[in-house]
Amino acid sequence: MTTELDLVIRGGRIATAADVFDADIGIRGGRIVALGHDLGAASEEIDATGKLVLPGGVDAHCHFDQPSSDGSVMADDFDSGPRSAAFGGTTTVIPFACQQKGQTLRAAVDDYHRRADGKSVIDYAFHLIVTDPTPQVLGQELPALIREGYTSFKIYTTYDDLKLNDRQIIEVLALAKREGALTMIHAENSDAIAWLTEALEQAGQTAPRFHADARPAIAEREATHRAISLAEIVDVPMLVVHVSGGEAMDQIAAARAKGLRVFAETCPQYILLTADDLDLDGFEGAKHICSPPPRDTASQQSVWRGLANGTFQVFSSDHAPFKFDSATGKKLCGDGASFTHVPNGIPGVETRLPLLFSEGVGKGRISLNQFVALTATNPARLYGLYPRKGTIAVGADADIAIWDAEREVTIRNELLHHNVDYTPYEGRTITGWPEIVLSRGKTVVRGERLYAESGRGQFLECGAPDTLI
Amino acid sequence: MTTELDLVIRGGRIATAADVFDADIGIRGGRIVALGHDLGAASEEIDATGKLVLPGGVDAHCHFDQPSSDGSVMADDFDSGPRSAAFGGTTTVIPFACQQKGQTLRAAVDDYHRRADGKSVIDYAFHLIVTDPTPQVLGQELPALIREGYTSFKIYTTYDDLKLNDRQIIEVLALAKREGALTMIHAENSDAIAWLTEALEQAGQTAPRFHADARPAIAEREATHRAISLAEIVDVPMLVVHVSGGEAMDQIAAARAKGLRVFAETCPQYILLTADDLDLDGFEGAKHICSPPPRDTASQQSVWRGLANGTFQVFSSDHAPFKFDSATGKKLCGDGASFTHVPNGIPGVETRLPLLFSEGVGKGRISLNQFVALTATNPARLYGLYPRKGTIAVGADADIAIWDAEREVTIRNELLHHNVDYTPYEGRTITGWPEIVLSRGKTVVRGERLYAESGRGQFLECGAPDTLI
Amino acid sequence: MTTELDLVIRGGRIATAADVFDADIGIRGGRIVALGHDLGAASEEIDATGKLVLPGGVDAHCHFDQPSSDGSVMADDFDSGPRSAAFGGTTTVIPFACQQKGQTLRAAVDDYHRRADGKSVIDYAFHLIVTDPTPQVLGQELPALIREGYTSFKIYTTYDDLKLNDRQIIEVLALAKREGALTMIHAENSDAIAWLTEALEQAGQTAPRFHADARPAIAEREATHRAISLAEIVDVPMLVVHVSGGEAMDQIAAARAKGLRVFAETCPQYILLTADDLDLDGFEGAKHICSPPPRDTASQQSVWRGLANGTFQVFSSDHAPFKFDSATGKKLCGDGASFTHVPNGIPGVETRLPLLFSEGVGKGRISLNQFVALTATNPARLYGLYPRKGTIAVGADADIAIWDAEREVTIRNELLHHNVDYTPYEGRTITGWPEIVLSRGKTVVRGERLYAESGRGQFLECGAPDTLI
Amino acid sequence: MTTELDLVIRGGRIATAADVFDADIGIRGGRIVALGHDLGAASEEIDATGKLVLPGGVDAHCHFDQPSSDGSVMADDFDSGPRSAAFGGTTTVIPFACQQKGQTLRAAVDDYHRRADGKSVIDYAFHLIVTDPTPQVLGQELPALIREGYTSFKIYTTYDDLKLNDRQIIEVLALAKREGALTMIHAENSDAIAWLTEALEQAGQTAPRFHADARPAIAEREATHRAISLAEIVDVPMLVVHVSGGEAMDQIAAARAKGLRVFAETCPQYILLTADDLDLDGFEGAKHICSPPPRDTASQQSVWRGLANGTFQVFSSDHAPFKFDSATGKKLCGDGASFTHVPNGIPGVETRLPLLFSEGVGKGRISLNQFVALTATNPARLYGLYPRKGTIAVGADADIAIWDAEREVTIRNELLHHNVDYTPYEGRTITGWPEIVLSRGKTVVRGERLYAESGRGQFLECGAPDTLI
Repeated sequence: MTTELDLVIRGGRIATAADVFDADIGIRGGRIVALGHDLGAASEEIDATGKLVLPGGVDAHCHFDQPSSDGSVMADDFDSGPRSAAFGGTTTVIPFACQQKGQTLRAAVDDYHRRADGKSVIDYAFHLIVTDPTPQVLGQELPALIREGYTSFKIYTTYDDLKLNDRQIIEVLALAKREGALTMIHAENSDAIAWLTEALEQAGQTAPRFHADARPAIAEREATHRAISLAEIVDVPMLVVHVSGGEAMDQIAAARAKGLRVFAETCPQYILLTADDLDLDGFEGAKHICSPPPRDTASQQSVWRGLANGTFQVFSSDHAPFKFDSATGKKLCGDGASFTHVPNGIPGVETRLPLLFSEGVGKGRISLNQFVALTATNPARLYGLYPRKGTIAVGADADIAIWDAEREVTIRNELLHHNVDYTPYEGRTITGWPEIVLSRGKTVVRGERLYAESGRGQFLECGAPDTLI
Repeated sequence: MTTELDLVIRGGRIATAADVFDADIGIRGGRIVALGHDLGAASEEIDATGKLVLPGGVDAHCHFDQPSSDGSVMADDFDSGPRSAAFGGTTTVIPFACQQKGQTLRAAVDDYHRRADGKSVIDYAFHLIVTDPTPQVLGQELPALIREGYTSFKIYTTYDDLKLNDRQIIEVLALAKREGALTMIHAENSDAIAWLTEALEQAGQTAPRFHADARPAIAEREATHRAISLAEIVDVPMLVVHVSGGEAMDQIAAARAKGLRVFAETCPQYILLTADDLDLDGFEGAKHICSPPPRDTASQQSVWRGLANGTFQVFSSDHAPFKFDSATGKKLCGDGASFTHVPNGIPGVETRLPLLFSEGVGKGRISLNQFVALTATNPARLYGLYPRKGTIAVGADADIAIWDAEREVTIRNELLHHNVDYTPYEGRTITGWPEIVLSRGKTVVRGERLYAESGRGQFLECGAPDTLI
Repeated sequence: MTTELDLVIRGGRIATAADVFDADIGIRGGRIVALGHDLGAASEEIDATGKLVLPGGVDAHCHFDQPSSDGSVMADDFDSGPRSAAFGGTTTVIPFACQQKGQTLRAAVDDYHRRADGKSVIDYAFHLIVTDPTPQVLGQELPALIREGYTSFKIYTTYDDLKLNDRQIIEVLALAKREGALTMIHAENSDAIAWLTEALEQAGQTAPRFHADARPAIAEREATHRAISLAEIVDVPMLVVHVSGGEAMDQIAAARAKGLRVFAETCPQYILLTADDLDLDGFEGAKHICSPPPRDTASQQSVWRGLANGTFQVFSSDHAPFKFDSATGKKLCGDGASFTHVPNGIPGVETRLPLLFSEGVGKGRISLNQFVALTATNPARLYGLYPRKGTIAVGADADIAIWDAEREVTIRNELLHHNVDYTPYEGRTITGWPEIVLSRGKTVVRGERLYAESGRGQFLECGAPDTLI
Repeated sequence: MTTELDLVIRGGRIATAADVFDADIGIRGGRIVALGHDLGAASEEIDATGKLVLPGGVDAHCHFDQPSSDGSVMADDFDSGPRSAAFGGTTTVIPFACQQKGQTLRAAVDDYHRRADGKSVIDYAFHLIVTDPTPQVLGQELPALIREGYTSFKIYTTYDDLKLNDRQIIEVLALAKREGALTMIHAENSDAIAWLTEALEQAGQTAPRFHADARPAIAEREATHRAISLAEIVDVPMLVVHVSGGEAMDQIAAARAKGLRVFAETCPQYILLTADDLDLDGFEGAKHICSPPPRDTASQQSVWRGLANGTFQVFSSDHAPFKFDSATGKKLCGDGASFTHVPNGIPGVETRLPLLFSEGVGKGRISLNQFVALTATNPARLYGLYPRKGTIAVGADADIAIWDAEREVTIRNELLHHNVDYTPYEGRTITGWPEIVLSRGKTVVRGERLYAESGRGQFLECGAPDTLI
């Protein structure tokens, strides 16, 4: 190599979605330019001997500073959210620019850029959330935005302010097909949930734990089957987000067995929590209210199987940062309010990777390659960020997490860097944690310290989804 | 890099099972030591601009110079077989050291080494075929051989001279579990086949096409379910070889959905041939007699789906080199003999990769990464040759195939390098062919010419199977 | 027996849903009072030697004189419809009192009684069609009507003037559970159909055959899965009407395998017609436009399997009597109008039993007992008419069809007694036809002649559905 | 009726497999000659007011006086066994004439007739057990025996002295197809059981409860799938006996969904016992050793679902009368002997019907019609005894059980009439018990008393199986 390297990471064990090998990594201009034994000197060197060198994670499902219609406020913005992600080994986040009903998509995107500009410590892209697929949106805005690098959008079958009806879902899927974008879907039957919820409320069953009863696995299975059927009719790939267990998984597996390009995502809460975590003393269960709710231990086993056998391609956090002890968070309507008034979602952008690493790789449930694929490579490919993001390969951005695979950590919220006042995983001891995290060759995190300033992260225009995975 | 490189492959587009990227490959001492942009000068350089640079294939199911009990003679030995493989982009072959009933396994292995020694142009390992699992074999020979690098063995549920009963299958699976080896199984119900065969013979239905009637998909499905059940009871991974279509695949997919570590292999004949290819004028159909037989177009579609959705991990040739017009080949018992007397198997070690590349990658059915995984990385991992073989990564052997992805080739047997007098794919035009093939950094094939001498290939001791794929 | 019999049917072979036996039937006061050998003399005797004596059919899905919102007019009213049914061996019909949106259910029932009063030659009950489940309807009208003998109601997921949304479906199911009624559902995804229809229309593809393209099996499967899921959440039995093939059947079979009380109905058009029957010269295909559309021969085979293995409990006609050559029928919007303007439905109340008898019993696909169960006993039980209707047993109404199982009939519309100007089965030759049909012991049909006057048929109040079948 | 009746049963509520109705039953010459209201006088009258009048049960799976090869002796012969059956409401038994290996089938049949002659109080037929399907047996003996009325035979996949290999199974199935007989199969993988058993024994795990570990559900599932596959290849109906739970049921249900005529039987032990019942103090668990073993409560639920949804057609006792406290029974090899030396099987011929009635009909899991179908009509049809046995219809034998549906009974072995010294259901309180049992019009049992002499029961020649059920 005739040109000097900026940085060499020496002596680590590198893993990609396919390979594990020992090599130095040569970095120049923020990109990986060489992998090899005994790479030449560089301005900066990191000794990774005895460490695992992994692609920085891509968290393809997280929420930061997303405007609400109910008065709740997300505790993490583009400053704290990405910083917390980085401390957990993630180097790319893809939160959601959410269209308010009545709003243009363009306005939503512009607003979200304003919220993000100059704040993030790592790179980020946007998914869109389409809540109002008017002819204007479908005919002009969305095609234009796709061409500008917003190539994935999430749609909902539930939540009154977000949900689309079947016709709208079809129109969005058809648009995705025409324009080469990827549709993500939150699949739960809204009417069933509403009916169950009203019945629970009428019976005075409003404690947090009834949230799980109001959103049974059947409601998730139904909407999953429906979404798959609509995608099958339109003949377009689709991804089902935050799948909680076997009922919905069976639908997805059946679709894949038929050759449909249906993809699926799951999250830490579905392998580590159960509905029992919503049934804690007082209002504590509200900390674990998210949708779909965590199910039971059999569901956890199903999800583990799906992570191992390829039913799932993506493992995200669905980080939704609502404080517990706050009138803009879980206690929006007061301490002890009905579960129907508790903002949905739990934090997890920082713990996502360590939890899966410890419980999955560490316990032999998945391979290290599967870990990389699920947390970095696959989301990068599906959302059009590959090969720039999601792997350690020549030409890729030097977004790298150097892990101490042996380090034991007992999770405490005070160790985390989000702005949320709790973690669902408080007190859980795990093995393995990222020690050094680089974004485009720049050390962002090293141990307990942040080495990069807010705002250095760049916005990423996404390319066409790669659905041949 | 302070040390000079032996060889640099410049400017190609490299694909692994996970990644596609543009980089030079630096090779020293037969191994890949660097991947990078603008690698320094080397003693030898290959310009790969505009080419695809792929890991050399690992053909994990091929037969060379395997002794028979019926007088048939394999046309390819360790000279012609591996050479033909190399011309087709394969750099590692794993044929079978087959125990004759009554023979010790050690004797079978020794004999097979004698047949292989000094002949192969590429590296090779051995699977064992266990036909006589005596206490001596299970208690001493096999454990010793596993420790010496023979870590996979094939067993049969059919063929009188090969088949094991259920108890023997269980004993072999239990041994594999104890010793950390991988069992491959040929799954067809022997008794059903025998009964159908006798009925066909009694009815005078002995033309080649009746071979397919004698071995229906149900017989394959049954033995597949049985093998899976026995592996489930023993609680050990297992691989089902040469799966022909949906009936057996459904059993495998169901097992995988339950979390069992059941793996599966398929072959070119199951995506490109059908039973109609056994029904040709005169005795020509005998050219396509193999077991299980090719099925129908619906089965082909099933197999394609399984290649794309992860039901299959391995794509092999099952190269079984019997000449057609020969008294030691397909006409062992004469021209027009009953199908029951026709040696089973078809040639394909050279065409395996180009066929899958053209029909799979070229036609958008699978990704380039899946192609690499199915044909190189996965078999290397499952059979304990990884990371030395099966990928392009720092530290791996420089077993590399440089492909011209645009080259159109009409397959003619005279273009092939095996010793068989036909190819099942005669006249088929495909796109993409390996142009240069390197084994441990040495150019073995370039265009039409062989550049390496027989015998340079090394025997490979296999390590523990990696079944976490 | 001390009291004289009114009628004895002598020497026939009687079949019920469970048994076949030779016996005389003794009738008094319109009811069966004895079954036995050599029953004593009666005022009237029918010699049934060599004949099959079956329960008169219960056609649980037929439309007569049902008001429309589009100007179409049903050709059969309560005079011609039941008469036609009787000639085909049916002795009970259950058409639909259909609520118009905005109308009270009570008004719909009253109106329908006015239409029926004094016209029918055989007994009849009403299903309701609930299109507007207001609180008034759910809270008061429907409970009252159920208590009055209207214990089953049909709901729709498609047709703009009929369809309910998921919440409404749930409310109706919950009402059915509370009050012990049975919900029938027409399951096709309305939005998918609308989207496909618009696309076809925009492409100018409006010939009758495109009706089948606009309503694919996936749309039916989706709505079937959804309906089952909602019934599972509510925990109530439900019946899916007019199932057309394997896709929806798989959902039903899976539900039943899980122990859900999901029932299913199919119709002659799904075993005898295919989508090709919509693709005839000129506008002739419009004769076979019904929803769901007939599919293909594989679907026919699936439906036959479902009739034999218990997936289906009910075989109805879905008689929808629109004339072909009429401005109030299939040509409502002109000869050659878009399929979207052709009234949906085909006639079949008279041919239902002979077609199933000939193709099912005659060809060994189902047993004679299954024939009786599917066409008479099961619908009587499910819809609360048993044991009065649907069987030949002591105490039951003497609703009896005496069949000549050997008679060959070539179906011609001029032989039929409906007011429709065509039959979809024109020219089909079948074996077996009812020769004498009795309603409450009174001979209604004998050969070609009608022996009973209009209006002798009684309205039947239905009891609680028996869903333990 | 001109001729006087011998007997009238008045005022009962009669149930068949399809119907429930109130009628008198007129009997003459041992047959039912009339069903009706107010039947004329008879020589004998039974008042059945307030009672259920059901067809006497057909127990199609029971063992009496069957010779053994291990020294065990069945406690019930053709005297006590049928008598016990009769007290439980059963009027026909079909035990097994079992060929010893090396013995001709004819000799086995002759021997079994000698054992049966002049002893049974109710009618009986024989199934054959084919253990040695020699050409002589298949070519001559079996066809002749089938023509003589032995139209069903059981084969085994397990037990060294009974089991057939796959080829033999196929030959028997093919013979059954040619001759119109029905094959019953005991499906458990013998080699897997042997291997597990040896491992347990080597580990000293020989207490009764390890019997369940030695025969896992997977071994049953495997053999079930295999048997179905072989029957599918031969294209012949088949019945799987004593199915224990969901694993095997799934295979059967899948086969039936494909349209195969695969039938299945289950027994009381699979709805009422679990493997925990083998884990009692001391050697008590040996009382519940049978094969397949009872599983768990989830399996019980599966079996209930299968009884309700049609997966099962037959409910038998598999009565195998070994005394517990006896050197020719469960303690054949001593008190505390290894489970491998405990005779397999449990008593139940008398409790079969009351248990299913109470737990099934009484608790609303199945209908009364299903009870009749499962316990009487279906076995009679499948085994060629219908319409003479298995129903209450004109022309049928007057084999009738008059039940007191309200009677509460706490099962105590001293109340039972078998010769076994225990019942697995000791202390269980149930509701409903047969009060009067008639065989061919003759009162055999009334309350606690037997009214018929040994030997009045007749041997029944079976006709062709009716597999269209």
